[in-house]
Amino acid sequence: MKRLSIELNKNSEEKYYIQLYEDIKSEILLGNLQVGDKLPSIRQSSIKFKISMTTVLQAYSMLEKYGYIEKIPGKGCFVKKIENFTLEKKVLPLLNTFKYGQYLESSAINFSNGTPPSKYFPLEIYKKLSKDILEKYGASVFEYQNVQGVQSLREVLSEYLEKEDIFVTENEILITSGTQQCLEIVLKLFSENLELTVLVSDPTYPNALNIFQGNCNIRTIELEEDGWNMEKLEEILKHEKIDLVYEVINFHNPTGVVWSDEKRKKLLHLAKKYNFYVVEDDSFSEFFYTGEKPKPLKSLDRINSERVIYIRTFSKTIMPGIGIALMIIPPLLQEKGILAKYGIDTTTSGLNQRILEEFIRENYFPEHISKIKNILKVKYEHMFKILENSKNLKIVIKPRGGFFFWVRILKDINIENFYGKAIEEGISLLPGSTFYNSGKMVPIIRLSFTVPTLTEIEKGIKKIDNLIDEF
Amino acid sequence: MKRLSIELNKNSEEKYYIQLYEDIKSEILLGNLQVGDKLPSIRQSSIKFKISMTTVLQAYSMLEKYGYIEKIPGKGCFVKKIENFTLEKKVLPLLNTFKYGQYLESSAINFSNGTPPSKYFPLEIYKKLSKDILEKYGASVFEYQNVQGVQSLREVLSEYLEKEDIFVTENEILITSGTQQCLEIVLKLFSENLELTVLVSDPTYPNALNIFQGNCNIRTIELEEDGWNMEKLEEILKHEKIDLVYEVINFHNPTGVVWSDEKRKKLLHLAKKYNFYVVEDDSFSEFFYTGEKPKPLKSLDRINSERVIYIRTFSKTIMPGIGIALMIIPPLLQEKGILAKYGIDTTTSGLNQRILEEFIRENYFPEHISKIKNILKVKYEHMFKILENSKNLKIVIKPRGGFFFWVRILKDINIENFYGKAIEEGISLLPGSTFYNSGKMVPIIRLSFTVPTLTEIEKGIKKIDNLIDEF
Repeated sequence: MKRLSIELNKNSEEKYYIQLYEDIKSEILLGNLQVGDKLPSIRQSSIKFKISMTTVLQAYSMLEKYGYIEKIPGKGCFVKKIENFTLEKKVLPLLNTFKYGQYLESSAINFSNGTPPSKYFPLEIYKKLSKDILEKYGASVFEYQNVQGVQSLREVLSEYLEKEDIFVTENEILITSGTQQCLEIVLKLFSENLELTVLVSDPTYPNALNIFQGNCNIRTIELEEDGWNMEKLEEILKHEKIDLVYEVINFHNPTGVVWSDEKRKKLLHLAKKYNFYVVEDDSFSEFFYTGEKPKPLKSLDRINSERVIYIRTFSKTIMPGIGIALMIIPPLLQEKGILAKYGIDTTTSGLNQRILEEFIRENYFPEHISKIKNILKVKYEHMFKILENSKNLKIVIKPRGGFFFWVRILKDINIENFYGKAIEEGISLLPGSTFYNSGKMVPIIRLSFTVPTLTEIEKGIKKIDNLIDEF
Repeated sequence: MKRLSIELNKNSEEKYYIQLYEDIKSEILLGNLQVGDKLPSIRQSSIKFKISMTTVLQAYSMLEKYGYIEKIPGKGCFVKKIENFTLEKKVLPLLNTFKYGQYLESSAINFSNGTPPSKYFPLEIYKKLSKDILEKYGASVFEYQNVQGVQSLREVLSEYLEKEDIFVTENEILITSGTQQCLEIVLKLFSENLELTVLVSDPTYPNALNIFQGNCNIRTIELEEDGWNMEKLEEILKHEKIDLVYEVINFHNPTGVVWSDEKRKKLLHLAKKYNFYVVEDDSFSEFFYTGEKPKPLKSLDRINSERVIYIRTFSKTIMPGIGIALMIIPPLLQEKGILAKYGIDTTTSGLNQRILEEFIRENYFPEHISKIKNILKVKYEHMFKILENSKNLKIVIKPRGGFFFWVRILKDINIENFYGKAIEEGISLLPGSTFYNSGKMVPIIRLSFTVPTLTEIEKGIKKIDNLIDEF
């Protein structure tokens, strides 16, 4: 019989039987409990977790119902072979982070979130604008909207983008319900290609990997501190047809890399020469803490021979609940993009489109960004200092913006076991393996500094340091 | 040189150059303008449409930019072969309806919309609940939420579904951002099947077709007035592996058919025997105008051998802007469904989930539905009477609920030309061809009665009758 290394969180809003169910399920999916392993009896679990036998029974019944275990009368409960389901191990940490929304905030030190905490969301502005807009437009904002996006929002965005040397009219902007939807649309732009090959950094943003997997061939290339090695890139291009490149050019997730000007130009040059498109995911440009704000790659794209498909979300600069991203698709593919958007969800929230429009038009945006940036900058500098003094951790590349430090553990440990241990100790972070297409088990972690307080940053990193010592 | 049968709408908010661009583009996509055809000169168009030459030039430049025409110096503008883009002709009417949102309302008689008009949306309740919720929960509603959906909303929905004999706990409900997202999730549930075959009614809901196309093989079966012919169905099942059935069991879109009890039971029986799942899209059950409210097929699904994947949107019962649907996935596939939802958009709006929760919990739902139903019932009866007296139109099957009449034109006309002509005359409707997987050109139209006033219904149908006479 297996001992369960599980602890229930008595402060969580989640009911105990659900917690127990989820925890045992995770153990099974992570492979810590294997097919044929026997679970503790209901009585044993009831004693161990200090919960009633009914609660344990409820959890076990759910595990049985969902096909994770089988009850053999007179013998007990055993882990079953999971049919019809192949959860990739490396997705699990990410899913755990999201599964209950951001509930971790209350009970653990949160180094995993990819957005600022809700206390910095522009709640009062949202309330005001929402009220004004419902007065002004009434129920029409709840109808299906222009598929391409509310025209006046696109006009405002077109002006806004000019400041960053992106010159497009409102007709060239497509509004979507978020970055993931933009990536779905990208795939549909090329749905005629029977074999689509996408080249991405290794490591890269896992939700992008998740969307590309199963729909395309994925090729990876190592990321240097100023972008890819362009000779290596051209080698790849000579030997294989690459259709798409996906990259976060500014403050790459997870590494924080900003591409050099020279490499940007070279990338666009090669895109033309080898006939591929570059999907630029521009999520973090606004969040620079030293030097100048980096320009998007899109600003270098040549009119009439466009090679960049530009994506920019407002989930990070405003809040996830705004649910809006913008996309610029080269002219010849634009109509197809609108048709794809129609097929995916017909329209994005009209109310939130109007709110975003006013948020930008009434100039709330610069002040809001600057407020958040000031807060994040302090956390960023604090975490940097503490990491510099850590004995077991080393920053791989010092970023000058974004939300994350990409940190090497100076000890050869199993990163997924370490991740599990950290969670138990009240530290949520993401293991490096989550970001590699191969899922390779390098001893690297991604630490986000957006949510924890200065004290938590200090406490949390000390805890991580100690955990590594004990490992 | 081609004459353009285009008219600009001087009352539209859309700028003239965009209108001209869109109209010429539509002519090209519909095949009325063909490769090599010459457009009128800028001067000619300026005179014809009574707009400045600059405006015409802008429209022509856009057409050139987006690859629809080419300018040959000294000769003029010619329609070009469209590269990299294959818009299906039958999707165009649908896209036109949505392209500018529901702008048609103001200038035309609208028989095409699939939702009640915005004046019946529960605007005041939304305002109140939104205010209460932002007071109570603050910015947390704008964070990423539980991927599966806000737990308390799922609890409320679980109770609500009990009234319709669907017995599921909150753990078995998945919240999504709409019907289309539910269908995307369905596809991902079966992503391991290399060849997925979906069986649908002919005719069927075009957005479902749109999502299945390109991802599955589609098979169709004729719809009789009480469901499919079950002998024919079993013939198909004997000869081919069907993995999924997609159907609107109650008030089928576009025909209004309600399946008989006998055929429902038989369908579930066959689902078990031939190992397929039935995707039940339950969009219209609430909208019955005579007799009893029909039960969902899901209520007949046997626990522990579930065969129904249940989908129910709140876009029609509340409003499109709520952006929420619920899904019940059989237990063994549920985890996969949550993972798919995570991959598509991580979470559905937290604010709107809480609003829906309170909308149901505080019992606004029954009153709201009954109010809308009373209004729609009057329109339904009115349109029925007028159609009964039409000389050129005949209802195919008399529905007892839903939003549409499926109407045969008693004259052999080209339905897409007719559709174009109707649009020009200020009548928006959907040609039958939009609903057939084969796009077949039967002389049938779908007339929605949700938007037009009683007078408009009378006027509109008379106009259609006259148009057919002239055709």
